[in-house]
Amino acid sequence: MHKVIYDTDPGVDDAMALLFLHRHSDIDLLGVTTVFGNASVDTTTRNALFLKREWNIACPVARGASVTFDPSRRERDWPTFVHGRNGLGDIEVPETIDLSTDPRPAHQFIIDTVRANPGEVTLVAVGRMTNLALALKHDPEIAKQVKDVVIMGGNFYVPGNVTPVAEANIHGDPEAADAVMTAAWKVVVVGLDVTAVTTMSRSYLADMAKAGGPSVQLLSDLSQSYIDFYSHAVDDGMMVHDSCACVYVVAPELFDTIEGSVRVVCGGIADGQTIVKPNGRHFPPNEWDNLPTQIVCTGIRSQAVIDLIRDVILGKANH
Amino acid sequence: MHKVIYDTDPGVDDAMALLFLHRHSDIDLLGVTTVFGNASVDTTTRNALFLKREWNIACPVARGASVTFDPSRRERDWPTFVHGRNGLGDIEVPETIDLSTDPRPAHQFIIDTVRANPGEVTLVAVGRMTNLALALKHDPEIAKQVKDVVIMGGNFYVPGNVTPVAEANIHGDPEAADAVMTAAWKVVVVGLDVTAVTTMSRSYLADMAKAGGPSVQLLSDLSQSYIDFYSHAVDDGMMVHDSCACVYVVAPELFDTIEGSVRVVCGGIADGQTIVKPNGRHFPPNEWDNLPTQIVCTGIRSQAVIDLIRDVILGKANH
Repeated sequence: MHKVIYDTDPGVDDAMALLFLHRHSDIDLLGVTTVFGNASVDTTTRNALFLKREWNIACPVARGASVTFDPSRRERDWPTFVHGRNGLGDIEVPETIDLSTDPRPAHQFIIDTVRANPGEVTLVAVGRMTNLALALKHDPEIAKQVKDVVIMGGNFYVPGNVTPVAEANIHGDPEAADAVMTAAWKVVVVGLDVTAVTTMSRSYLADMAKAGGPSVQLLSDLSQSYIDFYSHAVDDGMMVHDSCACVYVVAPELFDTIEGSVRVVCGGIADGQTIVKPNGRHFPPNEWDNLPTQIVCTGIRSQAVIDLIRDVILGKANH
Repeated sequence: MHKVIYDTDPGVDDAMALLFLHRHSDIDLLGVTTVFGNASVDTTTRNALFLKREWNIACPVARGASVTFDPSRRERDWPTFVHGRNGLGDIEVPETIDLSTDPRPAHQFIIDTVRANPGEVTLVAVGRMTNLALALKHDPEIAKQVKDVVIMGGNFYVPGNVTPVAEANIHGDPEAADAVMTAAWKVVVVGLDVTAVTTMSRSYLADMAKAGGPSVQLLSDLSQSYIDFYSHAVDDGMMVHDSCACVYVVAPELFDTIEGSVRVVCGGIADGQTIVKPNGRHFPPNEWDNLPTQIVCTGIRSQAVIDLIRDVILGKANH
């Protein structure tokens, strides 16, 4: 069993990933922590509670950061043109949900849960890395007690999606991401190199909804305007960014990876860019020396990933 | 005929490129301008005069910049492990050459020559971009009078060679390179995406020397320690970085290109990185907006390029 804390900002592709984690029989979802990003943390927390209720997810939801790790960073507008004004593709969502959040802030929930399960917890983080950076700041020792960290974010040998060199999750809080990448834990970076080529078509999702009943129909409904958004980049379908990170947890063999130290550019025109120095490549002394080795995904079996997402969500996976 | 000013820091691969320009029947080499980089400008100027004498090159040599465009940048050591202590692979080169340089500094030579040949001059720049940036600073109007600028430098969708994201020529003077990339002239960027996959083997060069007599034997001799250096990255041979830029001038059909605006990161861990925003890709307002469109090389027919270099240097090209 993989014990997972899911750090998320739902968010359309976040929702699909949540259903995947919830339904995978080898995953024990210990908690959902929320963060600002695709919408305000008020909205993403409300959305997490909404999906928890609709999908009968048992684990607690802990509310996380509302601003960047370095609070002096300029605030940006929410990407309503991607995830809708309500963060879930503008389907009808109640203003408030009659469920309560965990009393602790997300970073404390992470610290406590990791300490209660030493060496066993996988952190799957698919939004800004702010909660993880705060957990490291408040309790640096947890780095050694986490099993691994799998993040959706960044880009290495492909362009960015919010600037020519930066991806949204990392660009939204570069200082937090740099803290996460350079900490002494094992990070797997699932970025645009693999997620931007992994798309689910509208008809594929419609077939899933037909087979999966109301819960999958909800997923399909909230994804429609997100698919519309992606028509500028994808012939027919949506990039399933966050689900790719979740698939890595259970099926790393579907990915090609390289190992190296990773830094995040903070400030300047490359703000939020992720940069890997692959192990075995030598350069004059530089900012990547003597940092922990992380794992960077560079290739993916996209169709197998898409099919696994479907099979898990439909309860058909033979895992 | 292509009227060319060759801005260079010889430099081993610079030497091959010089012989290519000198011997190509469609190139009228108007001048050689020197710059610090592979060695001090004293050394690169001496080397340019040495090669001019050995190869009977008629055009003037004008001495250029000795330090970065922004002189407050920290000085770096010369890359003696690449080009040798004398910049020409430590073959025997006289301390001084009995030829004189043009009385003007390189940037003034560039300005005067461009103004004397409006719309006709191609600047081929294969070292730090310092001389070109100084020419633009002293006479911004020349941008409109240059035919085009072809540079060897940078990297876009491949790693750098002096840091994980930066290439030596650009990293050696990022402010100069940013000025060149963003000026209102046509720049063709021939970077590591194409030059790092274009290598000439030791035996291929030896065969050239056998066929080409003393002038090509000299080129082979000065290249031997450079080939030794490249053994860490190339099975057998040397990357012919600078010659690729010269080949582009006469055979652009051997390259795949994209168009977009280009910036250079100045400062921080990505210092000296070149970043393109391809035309047609849309992002929120950013530092690439409203800049001139440049041409970035992303693919190359390497063997055809290598063969063309050989044929031109041996006087066998049918062009």
